[in-house]
Amino acid sequence: MDINSKALAQHKKLHGKIKIALKDSLNTRQKLSIYYTPGVAAVSKYVAGKPELAREYTWTGNNVAIISDGSAVLGLGDIGPYGAMPVMEGKAALFKQFAGIDGVPIVLDVHTVDEIVATVLAIAPSFGGINLEDIAAPKCFEIEERIKEKLDIPVMHDDQHGTAIVVLAGLINAARVTGKKLDDCKVVCVGAGAAGTAVVKLLYKYARPQILAVDSKGIIGKARKDLNDEKKALLKYTNPRNVSGNLADALLGADIFIGVSAPGILGAGMVKSMNKNAIIFAMANPTPEIMPDIAKQAGAAVVATGRSDFPNQVNNALAFPGVFRGALDNKVKKITDKHKIAAAKAIARLIEKPTADKIIPSVLDKKVVPAVAKVIK
Amino acid sequence: MDINSKALAQHKKLHGKIKIALKDSLNTRQKLSIYYTPGVAAVSKYVAGKPELAREYTWTGNNVAIISDGSAVLGLGDIGPYGAMPVMEGKAALFKQFAGIDGVPIVLDVHTVDEIVATVLAIAPSFGGINLEDIAAPKCFEIEERIKEKLDIPVMHDDQHGTAIVVLAGLINAARVTGKKLDDCKVVCVGAGAAGTAVVKLLYKYARPQILAVDSKGIIGKARKDLNDEKKALLKYTNPRNVSGNLADALLGADIFIGVSAPGILGAGMVKSMNKNAIIFAMANPTPEIMPDIAKQAGAAVVATGRSDFPNQVNNALAFPGVFRGALDNKVKKITDKHKIAAAKAIARLIEKPTADKIIPSVLDKKVVPAVAKVIK
Repeated sequence: MDINSKALAQHKKLHGKIKIALKDSLNTRQKLSIYYTPGVAAVSKYVAGKPELAREYTWTGNNVAIISDGSAVLGLGDIGPYGAMPVMEGKAALFKQFAGIDGVPIVLDVHTVDEIVATVLAIAPSFGGINLEDIAAPKCFEIEERIKEKLDIPVMHDDQHGTAIVVLAGLINAARVTGKKLDDCKVVCVGAGAAGTAVVKLLYKYARPQILAVDSKGIIGKARKDLNDEKKALLKYTNPRNVSGNLADALLGADIFIGVSAPGILGAGMVKSMNKNAIIFAMANPTPEIMPDIAKQAGAAVVATGRSDFPNQVNNALAFPGVFRGALDNKVKKITDKHKIAAAKAIARLIEKPTADKIIPSVLDKKVVPAVAKVIK
Repeated sequence: MDINSKALAQHKKLHGKIKIALKDSLNTRQKLSIYYTPGVAAVSKYVAGKPELAREYTWTGNNVAIISDGSAVLGLGDIGPYGAMPVMEGKAALFKQFAGIDGVPIVLDVHTVDEIVATVLAIAPSFGGINLEDIAAPKCFEIEERIKEKLDIPVMHDDQHGTAIVVLAGLINAARVTGKKLDDCKVVCVGAGAAGTAVVKLLYKYARPQILAVDSKGIIGKARKDLNDEKKALLKYTNPRNVSGNLADALLGADIFIGVSAPGILGAGMVKSMNKNAIIFAMANPTPEIMPDIAKQAGAAVVATGRSDFPNQVNNALAFPGVFRGALDNKVKKITDKHKIAAAKAIARLIEKPTADKIIPSVLDKKVVPAVAKVIK
């Protein structure tokens, strides 16, 4: 059976992946009176209007809502809330497996910025943190900003910042492997949606390399008339010399290719046109921008993808479990760029001697979550 | 330690009562690819836009949202979402313990009818059912109606219908014990909020007895100028002869007292003024309208309360777990009056030979949920 058939069979058999479990059973009158009425009234009275106490006396100190409107699910696009649920439930499973966090998948039947923000704010007292997921760009930016501004619990759009953290972690070690200095590198980032935008911003914050952002229409620059506000904002971090052109133009003499875009768009010839010891992060899913063997043959020194069947898997699961574990444990109310950079460095540090085939740890490495959680404080 | 101190200590120690658990662990690359990427994409594609399939392939076929804005929590009143969470989490624990249902407590930071309805509809695709809880009257009526109308999953405001089902179950057996026929009884229901209104309606539907509804201002009748729409609507089921007066007036010659009101409002003298073999359901929590020993001394034949330390505990937990278990198992999309009456009869039938001290089963009786679930079809 191929992986898709196995996935379908297993999901049908178990009816999904998560369930609610009891911390103690409620099988005696005594326990019913402690955990439910009349005893629970004392707890309700005690924590009413006091979020910090509520998080200590209920499960909300250890839970995180995983919220999506299904508008940008994996590579499947706008498949709506029902299609989003298997992924959100999967995320909840990862939260539990890797970080002991109670992830609660919430899929939304509303799709405008205002409606999504209103809904998340309305249900927010139910949770210790908010993980936004698979919400399409550009609305995801405003949604995250507005929710962060209103809530004093950790809020993170994982497609943006989870990706940015892990990409930065990988780049830190790829630079060590190739002897490059990130500050001096020429970077081309293809894909200017949620992930690409966040990668560019975090990389700029960390090392101020020369960056060109490229979307399906070519290099993003002042001359472009078709840019939305979010893409215009990228000009603060990219393309200071205001060049224009297509992807091939952008890659001439570049050191680093970061792809969060579409399958197969990177040709061997383009890799050859890059600087020596090129670093290729080809993260389109499930088919990368270029297959690793072709990139290597064309001279790339380090290749990373989003896939588990190649070396160097860039996987958000390296970031979000530890980020929220740390935020919940250390009562961090906002996830900042400082946190994200610290998380990236912590992930990179777990590889003592990086090699071309080992720049980032495995998601199954049990050291990852504690290392990340420690620096989110 | 008294029960309140125990409850506080235990909630603090365990940080609430529920957690997320995995149906299978995600500790190998193989399992990650089946439950998460890339395999999950096949599941997402398969169930996208198909609620029935989504409920089969995710946990949403077995989960129920327990939703409250904290506006009428137990006897504590409007204590807000944080104060509501311990109760909603307790309800989730009961759902799991008694019916194997994954209850997800959601407390809301919005309080108007429009906002609550919008929020519940927005998150509805995440769940297989909606249990509304501890939302103040009269807004609870419109909220439930509007949500039921829009969704094709079971929706129930438990304070209304859970209570009504269990009261009816108890009355059916109390009538057997006392040899009364419910159709011929004179009933006084005190408290015209969520529970009282639903009790009156269901009892009327079941047996058309003579009913007087009484609120803090007295008997509800046409002459009253202070009635809201919901109380006016009660006149369809109550007070056909349009009498007026206070509680004592209402009780003269009555057979059944149903109290969902306030502690201590029922005096021994009033019980004495009722018909022979009076039935008293004094369900104010935690202190009943009259203590059972006093009611008995005054001539009551059967006394029920909401408390576990007296005989005949009228407890919603006898109804909601089985109602939702049946609705989920049998794919029932609307909970109707027919379902509620069938549930009440099923609960009543579990007591083969009712006595004055045993008209309803214990919430710990494992036969209750299957018996109720069976008739919700």
